[in-house]
Amino acid sequence: MANEVKLHGVTGSPFVCRAVIALNLKEIKYEFVAEDLSNKSADLLKYNPVYKKVPVLVHNGNPISESLVIVEYIDEVWKGVPILPQDAYEKAQARFWAKFMDDKCFPAVFKAVSSHGEEQAVAEVHEALQFLENELKVKGSKFFGGDNINLVDIAATFVAFWIGAVEEALGIELLPKDKFPKLTEWSDNYVNCQAVKDSLPPRENIVAFFKKRFGKA
Amino acid sequence: MANEVKLHGVTGSPFVCRAVIALNLKEIKYEFVAEDLSNKSADLLKYNPVYKKVPVLVHNGNPISESLVIVEYIDEVWKGVPILPQDAYEKAQARFWAKFMDDKCFPAVFKAVSSHGEEQAVAEVHEALQFLENELKVKGSKFFGGDNINLVDIAATFVAFWIGAVEEALGIELLPKDKFPKLTEWSDNYVNCQAVKDSLPPRENIVAFFKKRFGKA
Repeated sequence: MANEVKLHGVTGSPFVCRAVIALNLKEIKYEFVAEDLSNKSADLLKYNPVYKKVPVLVHNGNPISESLVIVEYIDEVWKGVPILPQDAYEKAQARFWAKFMDDKCFPAVFKAVSSHGEEQAVAEVHEALQFLENELKVKGSKFFGGDNINLVDIAATFVAFWIGAVEEALGIELLPKDKFPKLTEWSDNYVNCQAVKDSLPPRENIVAFFKKRFGKA
Repeated sequence: MANEVKLHGVTGSPFVCRAVIALNLKEIKYEFVAEDLSNKSADLLKYNPVYKKVPVLVHNGNPISESLVIVEYIDEVWKGVPILPQDAYEKAQARFWAKFMDDKCFPAVFKAVSSHGEEQAVAEVHEALQFLENELKVKGSKFFGGDNINLVDIAATFVAFWIGAVEEALGIELLPKDKFPKLTEWSDNYVNCQAVKDSLPPRENIVAFFKKRFGKA
């Protein structure tokens, strides 16, 4: 059977990066189709007519949208390193925390960035991150997934990598080490995993992007 | 092994109702723990410290939050009627559409309701529902799940049942039959499935709730 895998994306997106990490973890060969978001391809519009957004994974012609749905799909179709826990309860917990990244953490970070670090917005980021700090403390493990990274770690990629770039670009503090020692340690461990390291965009590009887009004139 | 199942919820919530439908579909015996949202129980605060929201399913003492996560958990733990497709691609599609209900449809309906049917808000509801109408047309099946209901149908419970109650309560039209013939037919079929019918709150209570909360004085 043909096993053609394409990923429509842009470098620099933490959501696209989730799919890239999952593909790299499973050692899947794929073609990266770079999209221009100011002039989206006909394929992207056809594959994701609802949101017209990246990432879209196209496996043997079948398109899949939504980064966490893509990661679960990759985990189900390709064996090798598991991304979701096998136990049903642990799996449910992983899905809960992955969803938490999108529903609570990401919007909070976005608000803090677009408000240039407004006090209340930063407090909301800290409130969200405190749940993650506690979770790591309770688990007492290197990653949210235990000894190895799982869906939650992948979902939290923007915490480990993008937040640092934002802090540098805008001079605001979202993840202070003294307040979040576990999360800081996790970030360091996570971005140094080989599959993650191979998937991240150059940090200076992200810093430059945030400076240009959100920096004070 | 003990198999104690409790569901913390309120009657009248379409999110709680998703869990109830999944439990009824699988013919699982459970205890419904009615929560008072103006005076949440210590258990609820302990089980869902992040959102402090219902539904929370507690299985042998292990709490699970987020309605779609709960439905997937129920499907994995209890055999019987399957709620998610077996095929990985179909499963990904089901997860995409279930998420669409929460990310796109529900906020649109909420906005239309709280704005008393403001024109632009209603147009956004129609835009979202049009995707569902098209999906049913392409599938040509009785349910989003085919011959039987699946995760997508369960996620769309508020479309099938709550929207009609809102229309009656507020005198606004969100799901006109001539514009959405497939979705209207699906709604009728869906609310008449035995497991769904047994799970829905009395319609007059929902109508009364919306009249009181959102009706014009």
